Amino acid sequence: MKTVLVIGIGTGSPEHLTLAAIAALNRAEILFIPDKGAAKADLAGLRRTIIERFVTRPDSRQAGYAVPRRNADQPDYGQGVDDWHAALADIYEGLVAQIPENSTGGFLVWGDPGLYDSTLRILERLKTPHRVEVVPGITAIQALTAAHGIPLNRIGEPVVITTGRRLGTVHEDTVVMLDGQLAFLQADPDLEIFWGAYLGSPDQILIAGRLGDVTEDIVATRQTARARHGWIMDTYLLRKPA
Amino acid sequence: MKTVLVIGIGTGSPEHLTLAAIAALNRAEILFIPDKGAAKADLAGLRRTIIERFVTRPDSRQAGYAVPRRNADQPDYGQGVDDWHAALADIYEGLVAQIPENSTGGFLVWGDPGLYDSTLRILERLKTPHRVEVVPGITAIQALTAAHGIPLNRIGEPVVITTGRRLGTVHEDTVVMLDGQLAFLQADPDLEIFWGAYLGSPDQILIAGRLGDVTEDIVATRQTARARHGWIMDTYLLRKPA
Repeated sequence: MKTVLVIGIGTGSPEHLTLAAIAALNRAEILFIPDKGAAKADLAGLRRTIIERFVTRPDSRQAGYAVPRRNADQPDYGQGVDDWHAALADIYEGLVAQIPENSTGGFLVWGDPGLYDSTLRILERLKTPHRVEVVPGITAIQALTAAHGIPLNRIGEPVVITTGRRLGTVHEDTVVMLDGQLAFLQADPDLEIFWGAYLGSPDQILIAGRLGDVTEDIVATRQTARARHGWIMDTYLLRKPA
Repeated sequence: MKTVLVIGIGTGSPEHLTLAAIAALNRAEILFIPDKGAAKADLAGLRRTIIERFVTRPDSRQAGYAVPRRNADQPDYGQGVDDWHAALADIYEGLVAQIPENSTGGFLVWGDPGLYDSTLRILERLKTPHRVEVVPGITAIQALTAAHGIPLNRIGEPVVITTGRRLGTVHEDTVVMLDGQLAFLQADPDLEIFWGAYLGSPDQILIAGRLGDVTEDIVATRQTARARHGWIMDTYLLRKPA
């Protein structure tokens, strides 16, 4: 049986790596490295930095693979994701074929493999028999609250994690991830926002305050940073003032 | 100015430590170790194991402190927590006083300092001027989904994190933490549950299935394990079947 390690590598900083992740990087005979194109070249670069710095196994190999883009023009979001996963499953099938029998391959996943990441779901589609092991990683949520020095939850209160696409009226403290459409523009301006981009990295940017007071600053900062890097990953917590 | 590091050490396994956490443990001149009593002696033991294994700074010191119990008989939950935090703040004031001026002390926090942990809130109450830095850690949620090999969220869907005390009808995928009262007994038996105790540790126990089918097993397993260890920490994900 082949083993596939799905290794959470944290968010933006090699210092987020856990000892378990480093051990897993060295258990894999072959590591699979996605190429998301030139725009996110610094992200791919960070993956390579991690491998260079922490993989000590002399026979460790790497296999790069191209990541197809999801068809954002598909009006049915679920169908668009399904098509995209099917295309990725074909690619993964080829990657897992490269793992020698009874040996181990590894995927490096930003943040944690459980949170808004598709690797586990795509592996479930494979026909090639394999065993999956997951190594947890620091998520952007933890990087966000740590950078702002705040607790995620109020005392004994719930927290909702959602996406920009699904953000509605904020009743409970809410973390928004994957927000390309600036959903916070539609939210109650009296909410508090704790916003962060490129969390954990030397480029980290933080903005916090009453949403109505800092919205313009976030929009402008986001735009400038995105132009400079060619991409942006940001996350934020919205909550009612105490 | 004194610096207080609030260091997330992950859940149950020294392998959950990040490189940033190990660096932080070594930046602190003095580390504060709570004594939660004999019942949780193995938890305190794991903290000491971590310090012995990873703290290489020769002048590192440790200060133990007794943790008062929250008065569970206080009918007003908020007031009970507030009284408890006030008592802890008095103790922390004494701990921070032990940090030499312009030096650094550190608290080791299970999981992540942002998630259902009171350290940051108690530090906010202190009169002694100090600067706080937070180091994120792997939470029980990540340990739970990794151990079960599942994603936390459905594709693009939200996730709620809550406590046993606050668990109501489950509309969205929900993680329950701090559930001393077995709130899952009141939940829809057709939900799926992914349950875990002592996550990340060699004593880890996992149970998953249709809630109605595994409830008895979880209750019995929980009772036996609690009797054996003297304490239990468990976490679970409830979700509607796909």
